[in-house]
Amino acid sequence: MRKTIIATGAVLALAAPLSAFAQAKPEQLVKQRQSAMTLIAKYFGPIAGMAQGKIPYNADTVARNATYLENLAQMPWDGFNESTKDVKSNALPAVWSEPSKFQEAANRLQSETVKLAAAARAKDEAGVKAQFGAVGKACGACHDNFRQKQ
Amino acid sequence: MRKTIIATGAVLALAAPLSAFAQAKPEQLVKQRQSAMTLIAKYFGPIAGMAQGKIPYNADTVARNATYLENLAQMPWDGFNESTKDVKSNALPAVWSEPSKFQEAANRLQSETVKLAAAARAKDEAGVKAQFGAVGKACGACHDNFRQKQ
Repeated sequence: MRKTIIATGAVLALAAPLSAFAQAKPEQLVKQRQSAMTLIAKYFGPIAGMAQGKIPYNADTVARNATYLENLAQMPWDGFNESTKDVKSNALPAVWSEPSKFQEAANRLQSETVKLAAAARAKDEAGVKAQFGAVGKACGACHDNFRQKQ
Repeated sequence: MRKTIIATGAVLALAAPLSAFAQAKPEQLVKQRQSAMTLIAKYFGPIAGMAQGKIPYNADTVARNATYLENLAQMPWDGFNESTKDVKSNALPAVWSEPSKFQEAANRLQSETVKLAAAARAKDEAGVKAQFGAVGKACGACHDNFRQKQ
């Protein structure tokens, strides 16, 4: 049953302005962006645990998870379309009142996860341990400014 | 504001047995697997529309979406842990009563999306148009057997 799949992915992400690909209904956009956040948490959690020595370090898992994160970090943003302003969610009004600051925060998560994934795929454990904090800070900085306190 | 990020991803997915990475609570596992399915639909939809000529073909969008899909297609399966059997969802009991058939269906989606992504990144429009149907069939076959009728 165990099977190895090797997928070589050259992702050319166009990182368009936040609203560029939005076509779905507002509720669907919210569901999609929340789905991306759910999966970002799923795959970042073990990396953080390993980088902090809370669970045993597994370089293959880190490489896989970090590659997922690099992709997932590109997925939430078009879901923050203006049409979703009035849909119930944890997004603060600042998402739409400070769009360039929000875009900057989004870009930061993307660039930090790209660096994390590069270190992870190079099996550079020290690099991963140095970089995971930058990814965590990118998450936290955006949540502090643009998400309701949990 | 427009920014291009190029992420080169070599994904080494260990495609472990379905239960190997499950540590989260059952409700969380369901939420995570449903999140992956939501995003698979988000990124497959435009490819299907373009491959069928319903919307203009954009090779960059297809390459991006197909790479996302290749990653996302690996994400749902550990969420079908036995601990989630009694959590309300659309999963049919066959997921757990016919595990090898379910694993086969999961593997099929993964291998078909790997092929789609390779054609998409090669900007092989004819290849994408030939392969998108195989991905759609992999979705449908699994839904027919393992998901409640919608």
